[in-house]
Parts: sequence; structure tokens; C-alpha cells
Amino acid sequence: MKQEIRRIAILGSTGSIGTQALDIVRANPERLSVEVLTAQNNADLLIEQAIAFEPNAVVVGEDKYAHVKEALQKHDIKVYTGAEALCQVVQMETVDMVLAAIVGFAGLRSTIAAIEAGKPIALANKETLVVAGALVTSLAKEKGVNIYPVDSEHSAIFQCLAGEFHNKIEKIYLTASGGPFRGKDKKFLSTVTKADALKHPNWSMGSKITIDSATMMNKGLEIIEAGWLFGLKPEQIDVIIHPQSIIHSLVQFEDGSIKAQMGLPDMKLPIQYALFYPQRVASTFKRFDFAAYPSLTFEKPDMNTFPAIQLAYDAMKKGGNLPCVLNAANEVAVSAFLNDEISFLDIPAVVEKSMNKVSFIATPTLQEYIASDSEARKEAHSLTKTKISL
Amino acid sequence: MKQEIRRIAILGSTGSIGTQALDIVRANPERLSVEVLTAQNNADLLIEQAIAFEPNAVVVGEDKYAHVKEALQKHDIKVYTGAEALCQVVQMETVDMVLAAIVGFAGLRSTIAAIEAGKPIALANKETLVVAGALVTSLAKEKGVNIYPVDSEHSAIFQCLAGEFHNKIEKIYLTASGGPFRGKDKKFLSTVTKADALKHPNWSMGSKITIDSATMMNKGLEIIEAGWLFGLKPEQIDVIIHPQSIIHSLVQFEDGSIKAQMGLPDMKLPIQYALFYPQRVASTFKRFDFAAYPSLTFEKPDMNTFPAIQLAYDAMKKGGNLPCVLNAANEVAVSAFLNDEISFLDIPAVVEKSMNKVSFIATPTLQEYIASDSEARKEAHSLTKTKISL
Repeated sequence: MKQEIRRIAILGSTGSIGTQALDIVRANPERLSVEVLTAQNNADLLIEQAIAFEPNAVVVGEDKYAHVKEALQKHDIKVYTGAEALCQVVQMETVDMVLAAIVGFAGLRSTIAAIEAGKPIALANKETLVVAGALVTSLAKEKGVNIYPVDSEHSAIFQCLAGEFHNKIEKIYLTASGGPFRGKDKKFLSTVTKADALKHPNWSMGSKITIDSATMMNKGLEIIEAGWLFGLKPEQIDVIIHPQSIIHSLVQFEDGSIKAQMGLPDMKLPIQYALFYPQRVASTFKRFDFAAYPSLTFEKPDMNTFPAIQLAYDAMKKGGNLPCVLNAANEVAVSAFLNDEISFLDIPAVVEKSMNKVSFIATPTLQEYIASDSEARKEAHSLTKTKISL
Repeated sequence: MKQEIRRIAILGSTGSIGTQALDIVRANPERLSVEVLTAQNNADLLIEQAIAFEPNAVVVGEDKYAHVKEALQKHDIKVYTGAEALCQVVQMETVDMVLAAIVGFAGLRSTIAAIEAGKPIALANKETLVVAGALVTSLAKEKGVNIYPVDSEHSAIFQCLAGEFHNKIEKIYLTASGGPFRGKDKKFLSTVTKADALKHPNWSMGSKITIDSATMMNKGLEIIEAGWLFGLKPEQIDVIIHPQSIIHSLVQFEDGSIKAQMGLPDMKLPIQYALFYPQRVASTFKRFDFAAYPSLTFEKPDMNTFPAIQLAYDAMKKGGNLPCVLNAANEVAVSAFLNDEISFLDIPAVVEKSMNKVSFIATPTLQEYIASDSEARKEAHSLTKTKISL
């Protein structure tokens, strides 16, 4: 039986998820081909990827457009730029699936465009659901579009739900490594540097998500994301610290049975699972070995030292535009931290203050989400400039 | 929507699995009813169960027949005795599912009879597959009968395979508590008593299976059972010692992803899962809590001190009537140990010697299985009487 080739659009192809996705395409040429590649800044890598994978089209940030256009002029590859182009290429008839791997709020519009065109989504951009989960999930339902999670935790839950969609979830556990500062107190955290925060013990990821892991805001965003993906209430979502990052998350059903998905920490597996679902495809990824992990440990998160998790629960419970505000303020705060403008502990403080300042909207439209995002960014930005108040 | 009631035959209703199954029936009267109850010796409990659950028929051992018959004379319950009756009641049209919970080789014929009549089997009698796996699985295939495992390990694998039956299994891990003598050496084992061996650290089970856990023959039988249930080769089945008995077993797929099923050690869950599959039904079983299990540990089995596992792998590899011989010799040896006739270390020795003595048959018929079972029992029996040779 001839294998059908799935043609994918990779939004954010030069990032951590994007490059690993291309490794999977490279390993499975009879199953996957690349229809679209997009990148904001890394023009040289985008050019290299485009020449290697021969997509139909690439989209790049405006200031890199001329460079990419010229480099690809001898190739049969269309080169575009701008947010509109991004929304259009994902809707092309030749795209079978969209891997949404643009980091942050910037990934929202193109993901929505893909859903509007009925494209299945492999979702690596958690902000899409954090910011506008109500809107995105109802649109996906309306269009009959499946959203396959790429985050390792949500992929774990999704893998555990295979064959169980008719059964009620009692609760889920999202596991968290605890990041580089697990077990530390606030006094310690007041002294940490950018370099400290960027050293994740288990996962190799982009810098934004690595800082989010250090503050545990990453887990907070994942709580909100899980709520939308799996239709769960805040009280059905628990976080458990699991420093080895072997159990990627767990589902407890209403009969009390728990299913877990495990493996070495390697993002390729959840990316591949999302791209091939419901098929599992043979891989050469390094296998887990109990001999190397004689003990898997678990502890409660320290919600006092790492207030980000509680902020996320609060935003989820209150709903409306608050998760959007939380996300926007966090993006600004992390960026300010990476620019040495604020301290590590300022990050959750900026988020909390922004959440209290921005006006609440219970059921925002997409335009109102965009406005809330802007307002929160402005608020957070001004907070990062007046460090004294934090 | 009206729930359809599943009418079950419980073979071995007074044993550990049988009584727990009746607890599940009691908790789910709108989903389950009892059509048949059977017991060998425990007439009083059988009578009590029959009065409480009002089955269509009961079957009891011959020397208890008159007593049960009289006790139930005022009830509309048929009372039978004998192996033939056992095979007939499971074939009644009113039986929707058979819970095969008779311990040992004695459970084989009635299970085969149920499969012949096209009844779905909830299989707690692992000997059925250990002894005659080739015959039983090919008959089940021919009759279109599903076999739902009740053993906690096999139920764990089966739960992990929900929604994954189209995906290739790379390997499975059967977890083992290690029993009461984990970490001990042969010298220590040469001194242990029946009372020591009957103290299982985690699971409350019948005495045969508890001794099998202490020798690790239970895990050996489970390896063979798993091979037949899931179509696996010996090299695809690993045993890992997990003293807390929380992870009940694991499946590794060919993409490298591992799924595990977990929970407190409680046989009610796998029994219920088998009875209601594919539905999970809300339960009040005590829930697992990470706070009580901050560390889950894993170690390799000590195949030297506990040779039973290797004997089972050997029997599985050579196939034919060898697993049948292994099982029969083990039943005799465990019984002799429980009667203080042989020592703990004699158990695997009796099994090994019996395996070497009984004549090999590559593809036995049911009659040849029965003959091999008899021959092995005779051989093992004579070995238990000549302790000097062990």
C-alpha cells in the first residue's frame, strides 16, 4: 500500500521545535514533505532549510525579505513577508497540516487562519490557547479541526487519552522538572542571573520557554492550555514536580486508574506523534532505560517561592482576557529579564501587577484580545522601567 | 439511555478474585448481574453468595454438592457438580461474559468451553494461557472471542494498548514487587518458612499466587501469559522490580514512547476494567497520591537467586508442552511447600527437574496437554518425596 505523504507548513521553522520537526521530515521522506517554512529573523537558516526541503513558499520578517528573496531566486520557491502572508500561506490547498511553532502571542493569528481553513494543527505555540482558548477551541469545533498538542506534557496526556476519549477524566497531573531553581528560596532567587536561569537541567529549548521553566510560569501556561485542550476545570489539574522529567504527565480516570506517558526528555517524540497521529512511526530516538533511572521522584511545587503557578490558576479561574494579560505581561517581563532590565523575582511581580491593572473583559472578541495584549504589554513595559515599585 | 446489564458467570467465586468481583457487582447493580457462581470447596460462602446474588445456577465440588443443594432448595437456583457441569453452565445463552478465576490448571477446560461458546472472557486464570496458549488463542481467534486480562500487569498493558492496537509494540516491561524476599540471597532463602513466604508486601491474594510471588514464578507465568495475550516474543518482555507496586506495567512502542498504567495495588480495578471494557466506570476505590509515594524505584531482578523467571523464559522459548510442564510441576511444588513437605528453594528445583524429565511435545493437542500435565505432576510429586535429590 502506497504511503500518503503529508504536506506540512512549519511556522517558526528556525526555532527549536521547527528545526527538530525538520529532522523528523528528513528521517521520513516517504511520509512527510514541507510545503511552507516561516521564520522571523534567522534568514540564513531559513534559506538553508528552503534549499534543502524545497517548500512551495517561505515567509520571513520584513527586514530579511530582500536577502531571502535574492538567495532563493534560482529556486522554485515563493518568498513572502508580513503577517498577512503568514495567514495566507497556511490556508493554501496544498497544506495538509500546520505545525504552529512560532513563540508567543505572535503565533496566534496564523494559527487561527489555519483553523479557519480547516487545517489540522500540531500546536507547539501554547500561547494560542492560553491567550484565546475560548475563541480558538470553539472555532476549531465549528471547523471540525483537530488540535494535536506538541508540548511534551500535553502530548503525554493526549497519548494517554488514545482509546479513552469516551471515558471521563477525573484529573490530570502535569509534571514539571522544577527547573534550575528547584528547592531554592526567594532569597536565593533574588540573586540569580540570566545565565543561571538559562541552564535547564533536562530540556533543551528556546530561551523564552527556558526562563518560563525557571519561574514555573511555563507550567502555569500549560495549566491553562490543558484546560482548553482537554476540557478541564482548574481543580482537575495538578502540578507535580518530577525532577527527572521521565514521566511527561498523567491522566487519572474516574475508575481511579492512572495512565502515564514516559520517555527520555526529547521533544522529537511529541513533535513526531503530533505529525503522524494516530500512527506511531518507528524512530531511532534514544530509548529510556530503567538502569539509568533507578528512582523517579515526586514532590509538591513550592507555590510560595514560585508564584507564577498560582497566578495562572487565578487567571484561569477568572477567565476572560486575564490569561491573555498574564501571557503578555510575562512575555514583556521575560524579555526585560533577558535584557538585564529587571531581576528574576521581578518577572512574576510584573505579571501580577499587570493582571491587577488591565481592565477585565469577560468574553473578548479577537480584536479585544489583541487590545488586551497591547494594553498588558504597555503596562508591563512601564512596570519594568520603574523597578522601584516591584 | 437505558444501560444494558451484563450477565456474568464467575468461575471461582469464593476465591480472592471472585469475591472482589462480587463487590463490583454489588456496587453496580444497574450494569452487572450474576448468572453463574462456582466454587470447589467453600460451600458456605458459595451458599451465602448465591442467596445474595440469585444466580441462575451454581456449580460446586462433588463432596459439597448435597450440602449446597439442600441449602438452596427454597431458592430458584440450579445446583450442579462436576467438570462437565462447569463446562455446560458457561455456555448457557444467558451468560454474556465469563470471569475465569479458578486457580491453576483446573480452570483450563471451563475457559475453553466458554470460548467455544463465543463468550468474552475476563481472564484471571493465567494458567489457561501458560499451559495451552497456542490452542486457546487460536480458538479465541476462530470464535471471534476477546480475552480481557485481569492480572494487574496484563490489565496495565491492555489499558496502555487502548487506542494503540494499530501500533507496533517494541517491548513491554512487567513490573514485579519482588515479593517478600527481594534483596535476599540463596542462603537466606534456604531458611524461610511458609509463614514468611505468605507475607506479601503489597498485594492481598490467594496463597498459591502469593507463594508464586515469593519465588517469582508468578512473574515467570506472567511472561508466558503476556506473550500469548499480546503476541510478543520472549526478548520483547522485560521484568523490572518495582517494590512499591504502583506502576503495574509498561508498554514501549516503536517510536520509543512508553505508556504506563498506575494506581494503588488493588485488584478491584483490573477486575472492573475487564468486566466493563471499553467503558471505565466511576469507582470509590482509594486514589493514588504522590505525597504517599515520593519515590518510585526500579531494579533488575536477581535471576540467580530467583531462577523461576529464567525457567519461564526457557519454557517460553522452547514452547510446546514445556510451559504446561513448568506450570504443573510448580503447582505440585507449591502445594508441597504449603504442606511443609519441601523447602522454599526446592520449589524451582522441582520445576527445573520436571522440565528436564517430561517428554517434549512440540504442538500438543488438548489431550496431550492434559497428559503432559499429569506426567509433570507425577514427576514433580515423586521429586517432592525424594527431597535428598534436590
